[in-house]
Amino acid sequence: MPIELSYSPEVTALIERTREFVHGEILPVEDRHGGDIAAAGGDTLRVRMQRAAKQAGVFAPHAPVEYGGLGLNMSDRAPVFEAAGYSLFGPTALNIAAPDEGNVHLLAHIASPEQQARYLAPLAAGDIRSAFAMTEPAPGAGSDPSALRTRAARSGGEWRIDGQKWFITGADGAGFFIVMARTSGEPGSRGGATMFLVPADTPGVRVGRHIGTLDRAMIGGHCEVEFTDVTVPDSAVLGEVDRGFDYAQVRLGPARMTHVMRWLGAACRAHDVAVDLVAHREGFGQRLGDLGMIQKMVADNEIDIAATRALLVRACWELDEGLRASDSTSIAKTFAAEAIFRIVDRSVQMAGARGVCEDLPLARLSREVRPFRIYDGPSEVHRWAIAKRRVGAAKRADAESSGRK
Amino acid sequence: MPIELSYSPEVTALIERTREFVHGEILPVEDRHGGDIAAAGGDTLRVRMQRAAKQAGVFAPHAPVEYGGLGLNMSDRAPVFEAAGYSLFGPTALNIAAPDEGNVHLLAHIASPEQQARYLAPLAAGDIRSAFAMTEPAPGAGSDPSALRTRAARSGGEWRIDGQKWFITGADGAGFFIVMARTSGEPGSRGGATMFLVPADTPGVRVGRHIGTLDRAMIGGHCEVEFTDVTVPDSAVLGEVDRGFDYAQVRLGPARMTHVMRWLGAACRAHDVAVDLVAHREGFGQRLGDLGMIQKMVADNEIDIAATRALLVRACWELDEGLRASDSTSIAKTFAAEAIFRIVDRSVQMAGARGVCEDLPLARLSREVRPFRIYDGPSEVHRWAIAKRRVGAAKRADAESSGRK
Amino acid sequence: MPIELSYSPEVTALIERTREFVHGEILPVEDRHGGDIAAAGGDTLRVRMQRAAKQAGVFAPHAPVEYGGLGLNMSDRAPVFEAAGYSLFGPTALNIAAPDEGNVHLLAHIASPEQQARYLAPLAAGDIRSAFAMTEPAPGAGSDPSALRTRAARSGGEWRIDGQKWFITGADGAGFFIVMARTSGEPGSRGGATMFLVPADTPGVRVGRHIGTLDRAMIGGHCEVEFTDVTVPDSAVLGEVDRGFDYAQVRLGPARMTHVMRWLGAACRAHDVAVDLVAHREGFGQRLGDLGMIQKMVADNEIDIAATRALLVRACWELDEGLRASDSTSIAKTFAAEAIFRIVDRSVQMAGARGVCEDLPLARLSREVRPFRIYDGPSEVHRWAIAKRRVGAAKRADAESSGRK
Amino acid sequence: MPIELSYSPEVTALIERTREFVHGEILPVEDRHGGDIAAAGGDTLRVRMQRAAKQAGVFAPHAPVEYGGLGLNMSDRAPVFEAAGYSLFGPTALNIAAPDEGNVHLLAHIASPEQQARYLAPLAAGDIRSAFAMTEPAPGAGSDPSALRTRAARSGGEWRIDGQKWFITGADGAGFFIVMARTSGEPGSRGGATMFLVPADTPGVRVGRHIGTLDRAMIGGHCEVEFTDVTVPDSAVLGEVDRGFDYAQVRLGPARMTHVMRWLGAACRAHDVAVDLVAHREGFGQRLGDLGMIQKMVADNEIDIAATRALLVRACWELDEGLRASDSTSIAKTFAAEAIFRIVDRSVQMAGARGVCEDLPLARLSREVRPFRIYDGPSEVHRWAIAKRRVGAAKRADAESSGRK
Repeated sequence: MPIELSYSPEVTALIERTREFVHGEILPVEDRHGGDIAAAGGDTLRVRMQRAAKQAGVFAPHAPVEYGGLGLNMSDRAPVFEAAGYSLFGPTALNIAAPDEGNVHLLAHIASPEQQARYLAPLAAGDIRSAFAMTEPAPGAGSDPSALRTRAARSGGEWRIDGQKWFITGADGAGFFIVMARTSGEPGSRGGATMFLVPADTPGVRVGRHIGTLDRAMIGGHCEVEFTDVTVPDSAVLGEVDRGFDYAQVRLGPARMTHVMRWLGAACRAHDVAVDLVAHREGFGQRLGDLGMIQKMVADNEIDIAATRALLVRACWELDEGLRASDSTSIAKTFAAEAIFRIVDRSVQMAGARGVCEDLPLARLSREVRPFRIYDGPSEVHRWAIAKRRVGAAKRADAESSGRK
Repeated sequence: MPIELSYSPEVTALIERTREFVHGEILPVEDRHGGDIAAAGGDTLRVRMQRAAKQAGVFAPHAPVEYGGLGLNMSDRAPVFEAAGYSLFGPTALNIAAPDEGNVHLLAHIASPEQQARYLAPLAAGDIRSAFAMTEPAPGAGSDPSALRTRAARSGGEWRIDGQKWFITGADGAGFFIVMARTSGEPGSRGGATMFLVPADTPGVRVGRHIGTLDRAMIGGHCEVEFTDVTVPDSAVLGEVDRGFDYAQVRLGPARMTHVMRWLGAACRAHDVAVDLVAHREGFGQRLGDLGMIQKMVADNEIDIAATRALLVRACWELDEGLRASDSTSIAKTFAAEAIFRIVDRSVQMAGARGVCEDLPLARLSREVRPFRIYDGPSEVHRWAIAKRRVGAAKRADAESSGRK
Repeated sequence: MPIELSYSPEVTALIERTREFVHGEILPVEDRHGGDIAAAGGDTLRVRMQRAAKQAGVFAPHAPVEYGGLGLNMSDRAPVFEAAGYSLFGPTALNIAAPDEGNVHLLAHIASPEQQARYLAPLAAGDIRSAFAMTEPAPGAGSDPSALRTRAARSGGEWRIDGQKWFITGADGAGFFIVMARTSGEPGSRGGATMFLVPADTPGVRVGRHIGTLDRAMIGGHCEVEFTDVTVPDSAVLGEVDRGFDYAQVRLGPARMTHVMRWLGAACRAHDVAVDLVAHREGFGQRLGDLGMIQKMVADNEIDIAATRALLVRACWELDEGLRASDSTSIAKTFAAEAIFRIVDRSVQMAGARGVCEDLPLARLSREVRPFRIYDGPSEVHRWAIAKRRVGAAKRADAESSGRK
Repeated sequence: MPIELSYSPEVTALIERTREFVHGEILPVEDRHGGDIAAAGGDTLRVRMQRAAKQAGVFAPHAPVEYGGLGLNMSDRAPVFEAAGYSLFGPTALNIAAPDEGNVHLLAHIASPEQQARYLAPLAAGDIRSAFAMTEPAPGAGSDPSALRTRAARSGGEWRIDGQKWFITGADGAGFFIVMARTSGEPGSRGGATMFLVPADTPGVRVGRHIGTLDRAMIGGHCEVEFTDVTVPDSAVLGEVDRGFDYAQVRLGPARMTHVMRWLGAACRAHDVAVDLVAHREGFGQRLGDLGMIQKMVADNEIDIAATRALLVRACWELDEGLRASDSTSIAKTFAAEAIFRIVDRSVQMAGARGVCEDLPLARLSREVRPFRIYDGPSEVHRWAIAKRRVGAAKRADAESSGRK
């Protein structure tokens, strides 16, 4: 993997340290517990792994230096996060798992100094976890954020938040929530939304059931959360009132890419496990790995891995340049989610019956990666957005050239 | 689904009864227990469901009439088994789940009258379960049966069987095993194999651990089974000595097709659940089901369902005509396994986040159908066999026409 | 290809005769002229080939017996047309090429005895050719027939037809046109259309340029045709006034299927040529046909061929039963057009550089089959129709069950 | 297309100039002649276009500065060649068409000063054309170069070359040939090959027929060429004796990438034409470009374009770093050839019947790009090479770790 050739010596060393740490200390834990992080100890395990990561010098590579992180930009995060994602537990160990990682990014960009001291500092240090409360049960905000129904109303210098959230990752055990609530307009019209910082112990916050899903490598579940008459002061507003949809974009573009980085690591592990198996198994009088149909799968995996990495390089470069990167992150996310799914699926297939057994990590990886084609915007929504921009540009180009005549 | 138009009135009525039975009595049980048949009661549940199936007049449609079945040929089984497979528990309720269904078929064709009385009668009636012990841990028999290592040696009018089996579906709780053992030749050369009927309580038979897999809708697990100095009389030989590989083909062709029928039913359920959801949900100002990218998935599912059914019709017709049907069953199995996977995968995607949640059956169906691209011969092995025959024919055609000149 | 096993001895013999005729007398002509039927002689060649087909007893298998045909139903046409389509010139030789074949079908069902005597008799006999003038240049009738702009107005016992048509296959040299013209309503609304029988020498009929396309195996081109003040009597109305859209369906369902049959034959030829090549060529120290990646392509072709045939069997059966067969013909057409494209594309790939050369028929077959994914309704329009029916049924099912409560 | 953001101002300006030149001066010529460069004037047209390119300051961007070129490295060539490839005639106009472009590259790296003066100087200036004579008719050198059969024997200070070549692009009218001939070993064993510079008028050189192919945008055809008793002096040896296979790699890696750049430009044109069409056409009561299934095709094209560009960036960077880049060029070539094919195919489909007509450039682009999945190594050969390296590494890793124990 010569992609590191272009990284600075410091980053190259960090990538190497991360690999060693993950292979040596984290993968064995994951495999021992079949990838079930809750069964493996949940937050107790998290604290222990994060301590080890600090000792290994690989903790919080994304967090601002002033909060104890390594301050990497997006381009440098890519290979480090990929190395961490090689184990399903790796991102938690490095404190770069969703949703905390995206929340750190958001707070670093939008929060006031007081908010940073109170929320970002302990979050970056791994002292607490957090959750991002945007998604709602149908017919509320989902792929279409304009459907947002949770409301926040201001009266007497305070805000009162009411609404139901759904699929809130990490909610159970989170220290605080970033809550997206409508502060103007009506569901269906875009209107204005505001983000609020809400400590988990605020009266009226109720974390409900864990929604069982195909993926299980997150701490704190995907939960239902109710906010009933939750009252917070003005200082709980993150950034400015009515700019929540903009801030969500600030969070989403990079968060999509870090998702890709982590899942790409998981896909690489599946590929490595499968290649190792076919390189040593025999069947039909040959090494399996020398059979043409297996070679096709190996090569297709290599192509998908290379293309995912290449698209990441492009999108991260744009983000680091300060560009909006709407197209490049949508393209990278859509391609990657599907490529990662294909990589793991081919790896399962290469391994035959062992591929669907829990004795190898392949079966669980196939469960874990499937939702990524839906999370962070289903492929269909990204394709729709990409096409709308492209076709819209063609319509305008024509209108302009007509106008000129 | 006008395919029934070509079935006799009796079969048409049976299809309808099966649908009503499965929708009314079985699906609710499956959904209540999240598709986990062991958690739902295992054999206790099985007995209860089979009693209900008998009362509903839909029990054992495949079994010979003299053993209490309905005696359907392959062509007529197709729609009935599909209707049963609509619920993951349906095949168990009708006593047509793997491996019992295939074993009934095998015993009906190969077993002696005494063997039929002792094994087929209670199996067809649902009084006992059975297992088919062929697959072995690497480097033994798997996709390549010639690697068979379990041996049976004859001495003093008895056979002594020794070997390790792996991935033996339904082993835990089975009343007897059909054991495939090498009786001539060496692993790697084809040589000769023989099938033995071995009661589960025979000394030396040890059922080991359940191998955890993506699929969980079978009773009795996929197990490791050891045969150590297992001694059986000549009367335990099924059919003739050294003809085991031939008999395996007798079992495999039809068993592949009944697998397709059942899984096609499961795929149809996934499709129905997803279509029902998109027909009633709104997003982006429209019914989801009226959005073009969703319409594409709906139509692709319809096409895959229709093509799978059409290939089944063809292969079953050949089998009923007494043909070997090597190509048509390999083609139908390969296409179907991949089509069924695609159908369920698209259904998950159409449902968005709900598609990966356990609140709907889609997530579990996506787990359950994945292994079918590997079980009963991975797609790659079937493709290899199909191509070998076709290219071989082209080589021979040329040799012949050269010979003629 | 044991599919014939289910055909009557007469049909089986006809299939065999057709194969021999096409291989022995037609393929050599096609290959000598690189598949360019115009360059090979156009109508002169057609007349000569049709005379040979009559002598071989394979002429006009689809036409009514009273008009000199063999009167086959749709199910029996399938293997015969496929055998004819094995050569690009075969359908012309048998007088079953588009659009004449579909026009024979239409006239046999809708035309009056006088119209049959005047138009169907010579058409079925190959004495004249015909064209079906429906498609119009944008924004007129195309995939969306309701956009029809050509108008026919009645006055004084006569009809005056005005409009522009586009992509009218076989127009140059046709003896008559079946013209679709609007007789009520406005473009965009469905309204009513009527079909008119218009001799080619009627004043005001002008056949314009041949539109160059990827496919070139048709006689008479895909042409622009103008109808200016074309006046015809009442007796030129085919069937009833304002029922043209219905009659188009009568023509289209079967015409789609006969298209599939013919192109499937072409795809089979591509496959045979490629398999023959890889069965005899060596590379990398092996027969190419024994390499896994080639085997995969061979097997995928076999699967696509079998699935196309199986879907044809289904759709033809429905049509022969007198069913509307909207879904089954849309499904078969969409699957087949894409499968046929894949088969030819894989055949090209298997043959390597020779696959893109004119020395073999593969390159021209790849050109010829591409448009079929667009002709007779693009895949997208068929998918839209399939999904609309399915999702519509789900909406209604819910509405009904709500109504019942 | 913000990819230019990372290019130097000089290169950015060159890209822009190239676009303007190609749109303003070359595309109209291509479209007027339906993309048939021979019909449009062949070498006469070439000379005229190259003069215009010189005036526009966009000529020979790849050639060394000392030979009148712009001296771009691979990374900078990518966007410039893509802009040139937007027209099928663009590469010829800029003197960067195959095979001359690759031959310039090869001569710049391997040729002696005398050879450069005699061959490279006029080639870079567009005064002559050249051909690369490696491929042979079966069973000679093709995808598997070790099958090389053309021989060169040395006697009396001279070399005598004998052999048949096939598919030699640009042979008709070439000023000289670079001939690959076996100088040691036997066909099937790798042995040694040597490259010779052979003026076209050398006795014994005979250019035979043009092989008709799907693509027609090259000058000088794909020809059969015979070398019979062709005698050349020692000074005709390019580089060193027996190092021809190594030099072929020097040429092939970059040549693959420049092929990708050019064809990517062609694919972008197809996409632009199709998007422009669907952005302005209506059907089914909507802009076609707002229909979901069309949006899917638009987005998939955008994704394929972005991924191809991203993989090019990666491979060019490696080549500019002096790396061998076997994997990255094989991956980029394989992905790109298939992506470019898909892009053009979807563009055809979006345009409907117009997509297969010669009125738009889509039909001819679909013909032109198809062979690229075969030329420069079929996808299967690249996949085989990628997998062999990857599986080989896994075998070695295991052997090493075993060795260490």
